[in-house]
Amino acid sequence: MTPEFDLIQRYFTRPAKHAILGIGDDAALLRVPNGMALAVSVDTLVSGHHFEISSDARSIGYKSLAVNLSDMAAMGASPRWATLALTLPMVDPAWLAAFADGFFELADKVGVELIGGDTTSGPLAVSVQIMGEIMPDSALRRDQACPGDDIWVSGTLGDAAAALAIRQGRSGFDGPERQILEYRLDWPEPRLLLGTRLRGLAHAAIDISDGLLADLGHIARQSSVQALINLDALPCSPELCAVGDQQLIEECLLSGGDDYELCFSAAPDGRDDLKKLAESIHLKLTRIGKFQVGGGLKLMKKGKEVDLPRFLGFDHFG
Amino acid sequence: MTPEFDLIQRYFTRPAKHAILGIGDDAALLRVPNGMALAVSVDTLVSGHHFEISSDARSIGYKSLAVNLSDMAAMGASPRWATLALTLPMVDPAWLAAFADGFFELADKVGVELIGGDTTSGPLAVSVQIMGEIMPDSALRRDQACPGDDIWVSGTLGDAAAALAIRQGRSGFDGPERQILEYRLDWPEPRLLLGTRLRGLAHAAIDISDGLLADLGHIARQSSVQALINLDALPCSPELCAVGDQQLIEECLLSGGDDYELCFSAAPDGRDDLKKLAESIHLKLTRIGKFQVGGGLKLMKKGKEVDLPRFLGFDHFG
Repeated sequence: MTPEFDLIQRYFTRPAKHAILGIGDDAALLRVPNGMALAVSVDTLVSGHHFEISSDARSIGYKSLAVNLSDMAAMGASPRWATLALTLPMVDPAWLAAFADGFFELADKVGVELIGGDTTSGPLAVSVQIMGEIMPDSALRRDQACPGDDIWVSGTLGDAAAALAIRQGRSGFDGPERQILEYRLDWPEPRLLLGTRLRGLAHAAIDISDGLLADLGHIARQSSVQALINLDALPCSPELCAVGDQQLIEECLLSGGDDYELCFSAAPDGRDDLKKLAESIHLKLTRIGKFQVGGGLKLMKKGKEVDLPRFLGFDHFG
Repeated sequence: MTPEFDLIQRYFTRPAKHAILGIGDDAALLRVPNGMALAVSVDTLVSGHHFEISSDARSIGYKSLAVNLSDMAAMGASPRWATLALTLPMVDPAWLAAFADGFFELADKVGVELIGGDTTSGPLAVSVQIMGEIMPDSALRRDQACPGDDIWVSGTLGDAAAALAIRQGRSGFDGPERQILEYRLDWPEPRLLLGTRLRGLAHAAIDISDGLLADLGHIARQSSVQALINLDALPCSPELCAVGDQQLIEECLLSGGDDYELCFSAAPDGRDDLKKLAESIHLKLTRIGKFQVGGGLKLMKKGKEVDLPRFLGFDHFG
């Protein structure tokens, strides 16, 4: 076999336990349980943009799957299968082994099977498509938020963006907290359990990948409501707070991106249930604002409206 | 909205007629009919490798979908949905409009809906994932060929490879037939109708993307049989024959790649049915050899065995 075929086989082929036919044919064959909908999402990570060419291959493998699992979480779907389209400048066995380690470490943890893919030569880029299952009426969408809904976020925001700013020299912060911030950037944890538990409880949901304002903006626009955000309520980790630079912290919280937390809306009478949910799954859930009639976003700080920052979200081409 | 979001919306968003939820949310939601299996395949085209950066954008859009549809044809599946992961060096409205034209021209023709994707900035590459439906027991696979089966190919082989050789200066051919050869390279026709009609008739099938020997080799290996190929029987188009250079023609027929014809096996008692099928769908089907007990590939020319060429298939990294 030629090196290309060998690649796919050696690093990525495993028996398909939950597929009719896995890697090895022109297509994989999957069975979706009767009555369930298939949820499908794809995300690409490009070297030099989403990660550096020198980044740890294991972390790239992990993150390429994690960002996609986060989309599943945002739908409340249970992830099942993935395909991997890998473009590589050269065949580097050590790199591939590490990449596969990171990928499968996460895949095994969440029960996802790799059932197909493509390996091509070119500048390093990784495109993963994730497929999951959900009862169609239970899916969390972006267009179902209602005026009066509370807006919530999981975990804390801004850590990943702060780590990136430090790495890129936009912040000179060098305290011990840096390690934690970088961990959040390189090894994000998709909120799959939260997503499935929000079915029937949340009205709308999105995962925060481009930044709170940008992603919340999608919900507001698609649900035709206005988002009112309380800047003082945004959950900031101790590590991010330690960075000290208030302007940078604010930018990271609002627009940093790469958080992979869930932002969702629910009726106010769901507050007790959400409190219990947070305790039961050991995940902080913070109420950061509300939706109301109108459009766009409004930001409040110490009770007064403030101007929205110019940079509203991750723009690849900006 | 930022340019990136605008991109996805403007060129690629259409109402999802056959999806529960289409482009615009964290994932698309699709319903697979009860009892059917979902067939899934992904192929990436990279600039500088599968096409030149100067290639016609409409042709890239068309071909990025066509090569994936060919995988569906090789399974005998009916294609339904696609996702598009596009990596672009810059936002070029004219390029995007032409790309979308080519993509949707083919998608509309075969009834495929674009239901998701990702747009990232980086060196030009296109990754399309195709999803289709098939009754699981009807799927054409690579591992079901039997000793005694005839080996068939559809259409003719080698045109695309000859066109590439001409473009890359490996052949000086400049006759009027060049246009036809280039058309076959830039606008391959996936054999979807043939694929669905081969259900229950063919034992094994593959689409010829890397080259006849390489792709047939997959069937032989996965079915644990030996492929005996009659070089004199390989279907060569008048345009390819006009190129004149016999060695190049032979290489193109056997190893050229980019044909996107189907290579399949069937019991000898299926010959009449296949003859009728060819007439009914107006597609040439040529018997080129047979499978027998053993392993690997054997090539016959004028009744004598000949050495297999060294270059057996498309190796990205070779």
